[in-house]
Amino acid sequence: MKKLEICLSPVLYPYHKLEDSIVVVIDIFRATTTFSVALANGAKSIVPFASTEETYSHKGREGYTIAGERNGVKLEGFDLSNSPFGFLDNPEIKDKHIAFTTTNGTQAIDLVKDDAEVVIGSFLNETAVFDWLTKQDKNVVLLCSGWKNTINYEDTLFAASLAEKMMQTGKWECESDVLTMVQSFYDEAKEDLLGYIYEKSARVKRRAAELDLDKEFRFCLQRDVLQNIPIFKDGHLTNYEE
Amino acid sequence: MKKLEICLSPVLYPYHKLEDSIVVVIDIFRATTTFSVALANGAKSIVPFASTEETYSHKGREGYTIAGERNGVKLEGFDLSNSPFGFLDNPEIKDKHIAFTTTNGTQAIDLVKDDAEVVIGSFLNETAVFDWLTKQDKNVVLLCSGWKNTINYEDTLFAASLAEKMMQTGKWECESDVLTMVQSFYDEAKEDLLGYIYEKSARVKRRAAELDLDKEFRFCLQRDVLQNIPIFKDGHLTNYEE
Repeated sequence: MKKLEICLSPVLYPYHKLEDSIVVVIDIFRATTTFSVALANGAKSIVPFASTEETYSHKGREGYTIAGERNGVKLEGFDLSNSPFGFLDNPEIKDKHIAFTTTNGTQAIDLVKDDAEVVIGSFLNETAVFDWLTKQDKNVVLLCSGWKNTINYEDTLFAASLAEKMMQTGKWECESDVLTMVQSFYDEAKEDLLGYIYEKSARVKRRAAELDLDKEFRFCLQRDVLQNIPIFKDGHLTNYEE
Repeated sequence: MKKLEICLSPVLYPYHKLEDSIVVVIDIFRATTTFSVALANGAKSIVPFASTEETYSHKGREGYTIAGERNGVKLEGFDLSNSPFGFLDNPEIKDKHIAFTTTNGTQAIDLVKDDAEVVIGSFLNETAVFDWLTKQDKNVVLLCSGWKNTINYEDTLFAASLAEKMMQTGKWECESDVLTMVQSFYDEAKEDLLGYIYEKSARVKRRAAELDLDKEFRFCLQRDVLQNIPIFKDGHLTNYEE
């Protein structure tokens, strides 16, 4: 039996870390959703950076496009923000490496990349990632990027959804109180994720209004419209190939 | 309007910290429950220490009794463990300062004592603490001690219960996603706290069996049997006096 841990914030990671593990990095609004979209739409790789400076140093470099945001807003001088729509049918990203920095998601990758295999999770490729995990025979940590290290709804709901599928296989065991805690509200939310999040989260509702993100949030909560599995290797996220 | 934050683990505290605030430290099984019991039963003060060494250095000192546990087990050479039963009608604690160290609760006090006023919360004195908070006109952080920095049921349920009361007054506002998350499972749990915790938490159920703690856990989930309000001042927890 392998172990499953659910970690609701990057700062909790040291207490949920597992040997010989895969970490599923989760940042639903919007980093990990957008990484999956970019790689499904022709980008050659994503190169995640924690800092804006490192990312910006790739500006204009042969074969690179730079993308990034802070607090939900595109960074000045960057080619793209972290909106998934910027990576849909965009010829500019075709066969390009995307140097990418975001408020939460890229920091989470940075935190775990030396300890574990890293795969990117989103509702868009949930079943593809789930199927891949079932074949790996490894311990798994579901790592929610959160919002500036605090716990948020959207990442927690995705972790709950994926954990439910994983626990049903009987391949993993989870001892943590967090599993059943997140299941309680996932059960309330699963029929209408965005309706539930808007009803419950003053933060998301305000961001949606202030930054006109409603359409994007709806996009990010679609289930299983992508089949790619973005894994991290040698500093790059690329689609897993058998 | 004052602010309310709910912090589910001590490591999340830096991201929930508020100016000019009171921190309610919560360690239901068993530290904060036992502190309340000790002070309601004649102890002069509790002197919380993060380390066993500092605590042990008070052994045999005039006017002191030493108490402590690690991983739920009484420390060798200590006068008392952190069982609330050790402090009920015990003449040995009468008018004594109790030098005290525990796995989670005393560490949480240590973390926040320089930033904020500290009060101790437990189901046993929940309404007394709530009434006191409503009179203070301050920002409030509910700080769950957790289990070795991970999130646990019992502390989270208490935070949810107290937060519900506080939000109903209209005196506080809470922007964090955590508030509505914890309310979802508090609503499921509130009619039978221990039954719910045993059903949901493999960790608590195992601890109850291994360390024969069932009676203690039942004791710790009693509501409003005490009226004292333990506050921290000059290195000591004592009952608040008007």
